Amino acid sequence: MSSPVGRDPLEPKAGRDTVRRHNLSLVLRAVRDSGEITRAGVSARVGLTRAAISSLVEQLLESGFLSESGKTFSGQAGRPGTVLKVARTGVAGLGIEINVDYVSVCVVDLAGTDRVRLVEHLDNRGVPPGQVLRRAAQIAARALTSAAEQELSPVGATLALPGLVSSGTVRQAPNLGWTRVPAEEPFAAALTALRPRLPVLPVRSENEANLAALAELWFGGLGTVRTFLYLSGEIGVGGALVLNGELLRGAHGFAGEIGHAVVVPDGAECRCGARGCLEQYAGQSAMLKATGIADANGTAAVAELERRARAGDERALAALDRAGLMLGRVLSGAVNLFDPAAVVLGGIYRPLSPWLIPRASAELSARVVSGLWPRAGTRLRPSSPAADAARGAASLVVLDVLTDPVSYGERAAAG
Amino acid sequence: MSSPVGRDPLEPKAGRDTVRRHNLSLVLRAVRDSGEITRAGVSARVGLTRAAISSLVEQLLESGFLSESGKTFSGQAGRPGTVLKVARTGVAGLGIEINVDYVSVCVVDLAGTDRVRLVEHLDNRGVPPGQVLRRAAQIAARALTSAAEQELSPVGATLALPGLVSSGTVRQAPNLGWTRVPAEEPFAAALTALRPRLPVLPVRSENEANLAALAELWFGGLGTVRTFLYLSGEIGVGGALVLNGELLRGAHGFAGEIGHAVVVPDGAECRCGARGCLEQYAGQSAMLKATGIADANGTAAVAELERRARAGDERALAALDRAGLMLGRVLSGAVNLFDPAAVVLGGIYRPLSPWLIPRASAELSARVVSGLWPRAGTRLRPSSPAADAARGAASLVVLDVLTDPVSYGERAAAG
Repeated sequence: MSSPVGRDPLEPKAGRDTVRRHNLSLVLRAVRDSGEITRAGVSARVGLTRAAISSLVEQLLESGFLSESGKTFSGQAGRPGTVLKVARTGVAGLGIEINVDYVSVCVVDLAGTDRVRLVEHLDNRGVPPGQVLRRAAQIAARALTSAAEQELSPVGATLALPGLVSSGTVRQAPNLGWTRVPAEEPFAAALTALRPRLPVLPVRSENEANLAALAELWFGGLGTVRTFLYLSGEIGVGGALVLNGELLRGAHGFAGEIGHAVVVPDGAECRCGARGCLEQYAGQSAMLKATGIADANGTAAVAELERRARAGDERALAALDRAGLMLGRVLSGAVNLFDPAAVVLGGIYRPLSPWLIPRASAELSARVVSGLWPRAGTRLRPSSPAADAARGAASLVVLDVLTDPVSYGERAAAG
Repeated sequence: MSSPVGRDPLEPKAGRDTVRRHNLSLVLRAVRDSGEITRAGVSARVGLTRAAISSLVEQLLESGFLSESGKTFSGQAGRPGTVLKVARTGVAGLGIEINVDYVSVCVVDLAGTDRVRLVEHLDNRGVPPGQVLRRAAQIAARALTSAAEQELSPVGATLALPGLVSSGTVRQAPNLGWTRVPAEEPFAAALTALRPRLPVLPVRSENEANLAALAELWFGGLGTVRTFLYLSGEIGVGGALVLNGELLRGAHGFAGEIGHAVVVPDGAECRCGARGCLEQYAGQSAMLKATGIADANGTAAVAELERRARAGDERALAALDRAGLMLGRVLSGAVNLFDPAAVVLGGIYRPLSPWLIPRASAELSARVVSGLWPRAGTRLRPSSPAADAARGAASLVVLDVLTDPVSYGERAAAG
């Protein structure tokens, strides 16, 4: 599938192949980042000759990664070229977020567009992990059917999970009640059983806040910000650190766990076994309980909280003010420690941010010692609605394709 | 000073020079890391030919970076070689830690050894910054005299300062009472005035906890640990994050400020303007006050606290237990966020660690969600006595020399 053009027989195959694979990735990413571009444009952008670019583009067209239209750019010097775009069919990524009270699945194409989205609200607390993974596989299988209707063929899947994930296993997810649960293999087996005729998808797993943070970096509104802290408000409170555009994973891959910072010493007992954790004061259940809303249906309940806050309901406003204060306490410590350029509030904190941000910002500007946290700034901000963990999960697969398209060539051509 | 040997006249000078400079650094570092090594040993270690190594070694000997002894290694294959070491005279680094109640100056040689140390205990609180910097320059000038007696010539100086430092200015050091104080230029001017015949030393400045953390990384007992959190207990509580062997500076260079994390909401007022900060419960003054020891002479007072704790004095033990609890609260949040492989307690926390660590460890094992903090582990540990901010500061200069010896060659030969 990766027959290099005009290979010098004296040159070792491996070295030559490696360079060509790298260049194919450069060209594919140049087209992806440009949206639409001519071969001459790619040549200027990548810094290779027109002849080299033409050969690389041919291979990417044949393998189904690029598409071409007759449109030419006027105003360009030289022979008018046809316009290249990344293919909107073929290779794609599958992302599955399993959270405490919902499962969200999406399929992302090479351009990074969310092409299929399927969300089901189900309470996963107390449900055996195997059953949760099988239900998630059922939803994923339905998403694959929708993807096939759009001629999209996911070449890999990423599971986004609300806990500490390493080597394919959920080490701990207190709000799901999972401890040392293998996730990748049972999910892959369930999906394969449901879609036996499709190729077996490689499945990986990752912390959901990490994936949401990557989605924010890639698709959100952060502009030039490349170092930030991401908070994901759900039943639990997840977090992720991004340093210079890369996830900061720490020594064991567990960095970013902000939900169990102490905000009330000797306070309420937490599912992690300790007391007074942030989750007990700024988590979804805590805010709903303080407002007097039943916690049975997560999304509807959060919408109800938002509605009441908008209507000026005193209990709702007090609950959100208290959650904002607690968030501000923990965030000021995290900002002093990590010195991010921005803090992004995702998950349920996004719709609730108009009520959370004022109090949290006041706490931040009082406590951030660098004096770099002006009260009226935009450094504490809601996440972008276009960026969530499922999209980040699917995009991680697409990133692999962009990094080494040759490995995915056959499937794309077949797809 | 950097005349490359056997230059090919057809090759561009810049490229050739760059490669040679890089190779000189490789050879110098190979000798430094080995302690004693033959030319053959360097050749094997660096991966260059014996002829190339000989030429590079000659230049390093001539410039005074290396010394040679007639000793030969037995048991080595081939012609017996003389033994190379880094020079114990000539080029050196000067480090000056200005803290709240002391100034510590040291001179470090190319081997990383602390060759001159001068510590003066003086209360710098409320003293005008210019005066503090002039007094530090006086102490540094005395250290230079001692260095000259050992034929050591510092080629640069680093100021270690207890606050937020950027672009040569102390943006904020609440415990010194400094705000936007330029430090490098006044210090350099004062030192030059005191030693007019010596070359003007380039001076840079850096946060003291950052430098202490680097000293711990380079000279401490961390073994393979390359990702850790460092806490520096003084009048204030400083901190630093080291990620994969590099300082994590954050978006503005202010990362690591752990002293102002909230431990008691609405607690005691702090010099930073907020309430209930860690410093107010685990800082030097707080621990002394809780024990009933006057805070006039810092070092003697800390020694008295240690003596009382050792004697089983109840107030001392209670004060240290409380400080350990507060440290544990903040550290558990920091460990959950950053996931370090170790936490190192430096400054006054080092002698006090037998009383601080048990309570802090209990808090960490209760609150670190990865379950990776066993109560009896060595992940929370005192700093090495050989590693402090002044040594880190001086070593930063030496690191520059090791990275590009050619830039310092003339001075070394003259030294």
